[in-house]
Amino acid sequence: MRIDIITCLPKLLESPFGDSILKRAQNKNLVEIKVHDLRSFAKNKQKQVDDYAYGGGAGMVLMIEPIANCIEHLKSERSYDEIIYMSPDGDLLNQSLANDLSLRKNIMILCGHYKGVDERVREHYITREISIGDYVLSGGELAAAVLADAIIRLIPGVLSDETSALTDSFQDGLVAPPVYTRPAEFKGMTVPDVLLSGHEKKIEEWRFEQAVNRTKKRRPGAIGG
Amino acid sequence: MRIDIITCLPKLLESPFGDSILKRAQNKNLVEIKVHDLRSFAKNKQKQVDDYAYGGGAGMVLMIEPIANCIEHLKSERSYDEIIYMSPDGDLLNQSLANDLSLRKNIMILCGHYKGVDERVREHYITREISIGDYVLSGGELAAAVLADAIIRLIPGVLSDETSALTDSFQDGLVAPPVYTRPAEFKGMTVPDVLLSGHEKKIEEWRFEQAVNRTKKRRPGAIGG
Repeated sequence: MRIDIITCLPKLLESPFGDSILKRAQNKNLVEIKVHDLRSFAKNKQKQVDDYAYGGGAGMVLMIEPIANCIEHLKSERSYDEIIYMSPDGDLLNQSLANDLSLRKNIMILCGHYKGVDERVREHYITREISIGDYVLSGGELAAAVLADAIIRLIPGVLSDETSALTDSFQDGLVAPPVYTRPAEFKGMTVPDVLLSGHEKKIEEWRFEQAVNRTKKRRPGAIGG
Repeated sequence: MRIDIITCLPKLLESPFGDSILKRAQNKNLVEIKVHDLRSFAKNKQKQVDDYAYGGGAGMVLMIEPIANCIEHLKSERSYDEIIYMSPDGDLLNQSLANDLSLRKNIMILCGHYKGVDERVREHYITREISIGDYVLSGGELAAAVLADAIIRLIPGVLSDETSALTDSFQDGLVAPPVYTRPAEFKGMTVPDVLLSGHEKKIEEWRFEQAVNRTKKRRPGAIGG
């Protein structure tokens, strides 16, 4: 899989992809992540990528020209399954959308910043708009990193133990059950006996019951509870 | 405002706070962000912070002891309004929760990683669990960065023009209207005439109408449409 990210602030994306699972996924050649600096696609001397909004009002708007240049350049090199714009009013990201996108080959992600991008970009170049949640961020960079992380960890081979992703929250429609590790007692706080029992079937039943109860309490819509 | 973030992978958080608005907010002394490496609170020689889950199964669990040490250490220095754990099954972050948290003085954010943290941490130390959306990430670091960004940009003085945050999506219950900037024509694509008219009242009406229509289409729940 290849993910191209277009941003006017490429520095913001250095560390999220430079460590941990996303770094390992790249080292294993399971995913290629390329961050493109919008400024290098600006035509004028000042490398301008944003300007005031037509009609007035606070906040700067990312200009269509550098974005169009960058997208056209990338499209001339390969075909893309999706050209995604991260926007608070886009389709809400959920686990099923992440699963779906993890099966694509080439994805482009455009990060807005300031007040967003010129609407003509969204109308003419973007194939899908995605929001990571109903709140506003300074820019689309963190949202793009979140989307990339949610997708990449699902690619087979990225997590050291594949079953680890399969037992995640939401994959079976339930949130995850509580987990515990050593020590069995810490300042009087103990681990549930069943987890120390070694009785596999009972442990599985307990975890399922806990997951169902927690889902009912925390995400009642998910199981009609 | 002060935000303390506890993580076993501090490197992941370097660039999101090292540039753009979050950097400027720190330079202006409007917010202090401290990232704490969980490993420096581990007691044994190997600086171990995770271990296998009791009862078996895939994935590692963050141990209670280093986390408890770190939280106790911070609490001995100042009092905290909230000790937040980033978790996919926590309260869903939305704009109103971000607004609310932006008024607090000291916030601690614990990032899970791998399979999460020992449940006893959540029961005994955490005052609030927050999810940035119904999907799973490799760890809580990106989620903590998203939460911090959503909060910090609301602090007065952080954005260069305060009205910029007030006209964001969701602040008035509506998503933002389309924005345009120069040039007025690009490859045959034009800007709506009204925005070039200079007629303030008509522009305002057009923007409101666009925001309402877009909200009805994209977030119908938000205005009962």
